[in-house]
Amino acid sequence: MIQKIAVLTSGGDAPGMNAAIRAVVRTAIYHGIAVMGVRYGYQGLIDDDIFPMESRDVANIIQMGGTMLKTARSKDFMTEEGRSKAAANLKKHGVEGLVVIGGDGSFRGACALHAEHQMPIIGIPGTIDKDISGTDYTIGFDTAVNTAIEAIDKIRDTAAAHDRLFIIEVMGRDAGYIALNSGIATGAESVLVPERITNVERVAAMIDYDQKRRKNVHIIVVAEGDDFGAEPLTHVLQHKFPAMEIRHTVLGHIQRGGSPTYYDRVQASRLGYHAVLALKEGKSQEMVGIVNNHIAFAHMDSVVKKHQPIDDDLLDMVRVLSS
Amino acid sequence: MIQKIAVLTSGGDAPGMNAAIRAVVRTAIYHGIAVMGVRYGYQGLIDDDIFPMESRDVANIIQMGGTMLKTARSKDFMTEEGRSKAAANLKKHGVEGLVVIGGDGSFRGACALHAEHQMPIIGIPGTIDKDISGTDYTIGFDTAVNTAIEAIDKIRDTAAAHDRLFIIEVMGRDAGYIALNSGIATGAESVLVPERITNVERVAAMIDYDQKRRKNVHIIVVAEGDDFGAEPLTHVLQHKFPAMEIRHTVLGHIQRGGSPTYYDRVQASRLGYHAVLALKEGKSQEMVGIVNNHIAFAHMDSVVKKHQPIDDDLLDMVRVLSS
Amino acid sequence: MIQKIAVLTSGGDAPGMNAAIRAVVRTAIYHGIAVMGVRYGYQGLIDDDIFPMESRDVANIIQMGGTMLKTARSKDFMTEEGRSKAAANLKKHGVEGLVVIGGDGSFRGACALHAEHQMPIIGIPGTIDKDISGTDYTIGFDTAVNTAIEAIDKIRDTAAAHDRLFIIEVMGRDAGYIALNSGIATGAESVLVPERITNVERVAAMIDYDQKRRKNVHIIVVAEGDDFGAEPLTHVLQHKFPAMEIRHTVLGHIQRGGSPTYYDRVQASRLGYHAVLALKEGKSQEMVGIVNNHIAFAHMDSVVKKHQPIDDDLLDMVRVLSS
Amino acid sequence: MIQKIAVLTSGGDAPGMNAAIRAVVRTAIYHGIAVMGVRYGYQGLIDDDIFPMESRDVANIIQMGGTMLKTARSKDFMTEEGRSKAAANLKKHGVEGLVVIGGDGSFRGACALHAEHQMPIIGIPGTIDKDISGTDYTIGFDTAVNTAIEAIDKIRDTAAAHDRLFIIEVMGRDAGYIALNSGIATGAESVLVPERITNVERVAAMIDYDQKRRKNVHIIVVAEGDDFGAEPLTHVLQHKFPAMEIRHTVLGHIQRGGSPTYYDRVQASRLGYHAVLALKEGKSQEMVGIVNNHIAFAHMDSVVKKHQPIDDDLLDMVRVLSS
Repeated sequence: MIQKIAVLTSGGDAPGMNAAIRAVVRTAIYHGIAVMGVRYGYQGLIDDDIFPMESRDVANIIQMGGTMLKTARSKDFMTEEGRSKAAANLKKHGVEGLVVIGGDGSFRGACALHAEHQMPIIGIPGTIDKDISGTDYTIGFDTAVNTAIEAIDKIRDTAAAHDRLFIIEVMGRDAGYIALNSGIATGAESVLVPERITNVERVAAMIDYDQKRRKNVHIIVVAEGDDFGAEPLTHVLQHKFPAMEIRHTVLGHIQRGGSPTYYDRVQASRLGYHAVLALKEGKSQEMVGIVNNHIAFAHMDSVVKKHQPIDDDLLDMVRVLSS
Repeated sequence: MIQKIAVLTSGGDAPGMNAAIRAVVRTAIYHGIAVMGVRYGYQGLIDDDIFPMESRDVANIIQMGGTMLKTARSKDFMTEEGRSKAAANLKKHGVEGLVVIGGDGSFRGACALHAEHQMPIIGIPGTIDKDISGTDYTIGFDTAVNTAIEAIDKIRDTAAAHDRLFIIEVMGRDAGYIALNSGIATGAESVLVPERITNVERVAAMIDYDQKRRKNVHIIVVAEGDDFGAEPLTHVLQHKFPAMEIRHTVLGHIQRGGSPTYYDRVQASRLGYHAVLALKEGKSQEMVGIVNNHIAFAHMDSVVKKHQPIDDDLLDMVRVLSS
Repeated sequence: MIQKIAVLTSGGDAPGMNAAIRAVVRTAIYHGIAVMGVRYGYQGLIDDDIFPMESRDVANIIQMGGTMLKTARSKDFMTEEGRSKAAANLKKHGVEGLVVIGGDGSFRGACALHAEHQMPIIGIPGTIDKDISGTDYTIGFDTAVNTAIEAIDKIRDTAAAHDRLFIIEVMGRDAGYIALNSGIATGAESVLVPERITNVERVAAMIDYDQKRRKNVHIIVVAEGDDFGAEPLTHVLQHKFPAMEIRHTVLGHIQRGGSPTYYDRVQASRLGYHAVLALKEGKSQEMVGIVNNHIAFAHMDSVVKKHQPIDDDLLDMVRVLSS
Repeated sequence: MIQKIAVLTSGGDAPGMNAAIRAVVRTAIYHGIAVMGVRYGYQGLIDDDIFPMESRDVANIIQMGGTMLKTARSKDFMTEEGRSKAAANLKKHGVEGLVVIGGDGSFRGACALHAEHQMPIIGIPGTIDKDISGTDYTIGFDTAVNTAIEAIDKIRDTAAAHDRLFIIEVMGRDAGYIALNSGIATGAESVLVPERITNVERVAAMIDYDQKRRKNVHIIVVAEGDDFGAEPLTHVLQHKFPAMEIRHTVLGHIQRGGSPTYYDRVQASRLGYHAVLALKEGKSQEMVGIVNNHIAFAHMDSVVKKHQPIDDDLLDMVRVLSS
């Protein structure tokens, strides 16, 4: 049986990663498997920033944002030489299996490491953008949307006090899921997502219609990766509606941090727990995810950045429910 | 086509009910259907506490806890006479369809009203306990668990400062879902649920084991409906461990209130939206719920108080991850 | 005795304004004085957007951000003609006294109205910037700083995960009080305020020192009105430290909204309560504030935008405590 | 000059204690003074649970509730023998000054230790009850009241949905300050405090009056130490108003925990900073507090449990503003 595993976080951090780390460490120890932590993702593998972890090292982290193992992007790991060094370090420490918590880019790195050095690896999807195929759930999305709506609720207070139009940019470079869900949840009048081409005329027509019936507060939620973009939109709309007070705000990095929701804590714990069981059972090159509320595995080399399909139903709801 | 509908909330209130009301009102108006609001649930039907609702009446409520339509239990509605009066009032106002937001008890009332007076009714599952068959989702559960973990996180601060054992009672008269999820999410050492017979000796053995390895902070989350009960447990454990500082706390009604999470806002909105579409399409006596992330309908008379099966996996995780 | 008063909010909105409005309305009614609400500040006086308020109109608003009376800037009110129209409208409604909730600019308008039309006016200091002379307290500051630290705590999570330097801009066009307090409260390594000339070399030296001792996470909080500015600072530092990951984020309008803290609710209530008592006692042209925890009045024409003196002690603490 | 100091927390924990510990440690180190941490308060002095602290040991604790040094009540320290042991341990470690963060009971212990063993001691007032003479501020009060109002806001949601009367017990064994401030801030209809004899007839009369004018939601906030008590009150009122749905809830230990507010973080930091400066300047047997927003010292043996006088003004406001 496997005797020792390592765990790392890679790519952008996401709230709930600590819950996954804690679950990996404690499940492994429970099953008599030793655990090494790796700091700064793949770069830490290369730099030998690897240390033994005990149960107490993950006490009191389930409720914390960020990742106690830190994360980084590693150019070195994109080279064969870098990966050889990483594999040598893992071997040196007697590591026989690796848990990688990160996004689709991180999994591609894992595939290369496995292909070249036969290291068994289980991936856990960790990204607030929820843009990974093979799983309904990714660590951090639930918390990020809740953080976004708390911020937008606050902005609506001041928007309503001044009868202003607010254009609020939320995260999501390739996926509109944060925008769509936070928009519906805050009663936004429009939501603009990368999955649909933005029709500025239509947005303007809606504002015009609202103005005419004296509905003066207007919130537009725009995903970071929208084809038109929040800033250009602000300029265009200000030009069309010179009398309106229009404000543009970028929620930014607050969406990555904060204490995770129960859902991110519980699901990230489940994924960490099952990642260790999978390594124990001899699985490799699989991502452990959740499909229809059940644990599900996907071959890691088939996992790609794939958008959950944006439901037309939900986009329709934005307009119907804010009218 | 249907010209006028009514909407009411019934049974215990749950955060997200306002989002559902808002969605019912605005979706109806969007489709040219008039909407009447009913105050105090079925009692309001009998007392003719029924009023027309416009789009503006549901502005700025999506983020609010409670229910703007208020709710009550109605003994009168349990009688045929009461239901006749209710049906007469609905007829008087020209109401041709009814949306009932509530739990399984509320749906039984709806079935009786339909059987006796042929009123088309669509039910929306609203209860923080998540104990209704035919749907994975019920309004308010997501918010309630998040409220519980915020409270338990705070209690853990003071538990850790004093090395205390805390026994925390959360809601859930028949279902342990709030207890289980809030327990895992806060790293509770034990979780006691109505679905399993409580073994006090085993709980005591765990405390004893923790004491011996000098792990002095201990959290036990107990569902309201646990067969043993939080208060008796406190007495038994204090007797067994006289030197420990044991505290018993009941989270209570804070779990029902508060601004809903994004998930409760979005899903409650979806259910309200589809409830109106269902009435428009001529559906009746169905509950609109969510199964595997998709809208799903169930015949209302088949809907019963049914526990989501408690996953042994999750109960195992409690002990493995808190060790 | 005075029979009827009016109340308005003016300038930027601040959390707690609703608590003050509620206190004005209910205290007046308790003392047998009728109350008119004015929408959109001084502009509403001119446009006759004035309506009678009852006790129930202010139910359930104490916990809400923004201002139910809305606010606006009014160019018309800066003219004698505008003020004459405002006075005529007040007279038409029988208003004998006015409560103005706003900043120093709003009080200047009030002085002009009084000078020209002898309307008794009591001012209540409402601005999140806490930059008004004659009072230790202004409505909204306490909430705004708490909102800022919650956001900065979240940003620190992700900053720590990536070893990044974050430059965070908080509100405060003329005053550094939000920056100073949120900076100390979040353990920021530097705080830049309008009251002190920013020494970029010194900021860079601190970063350099931290880098050398491998303290890689660095938070700089910059007030909106800092002479150097957050964006230029970002460019200069990125140039000096090309290897560092530097991010610039603007907290923006979330700082204005949100449910007020207990302190803002209680103090705003006290000010509203005493504003009515003051009008009842025949006071006029005074601002009711809080000095050394006690209610204190200041002649309104002496009230100016004045910074609470920035304590050198506190600025020293920033560096000592983050080291 | 003083070379080495120690710091401990004693009595009940309070949010902000970690900020004070951090400030003590870092200010001392900044001034070249070594710092020892003591675990479990005075008991840790006796048990020699004393360890050296570095700057990094207090990184990332300013935002955390509880106390990283833990706290406990110590019977041993109440004996001369216990205090001799404590003094011997301090001497053994070369400690020349002590900072004690706690309540009036902790200060009495400090006075005995000083009297018998001449240890210079500076006290910092840490108690959520705000019941210490010589200072306007005690660590934790601001956070505790904000925690209480968030909970009461949630309870009001469900109270309003069901037209219920809620009797909510908040902390404050000897002082009504948490009750009074949380009551005003949440619009409670009555507030009962230990400083006033509770007149149940008057409370009942108010409920009766509200019932008659169809104001059906009623919140009564009761301090833990009220002479009548929340539970007896519930019984008496239920007897008088058999038709009302009356609920009794105890907020309990959540009031002690949670991330501190900016105010508790900043003021606790100031107190820790000045406590070290005071020891450095040779001060002893003084409590460092805040009076009228300025740092102020009081002789420790004059510090007693003394209530901030309850302002009749504020009690009047409760009724006037909730009417």
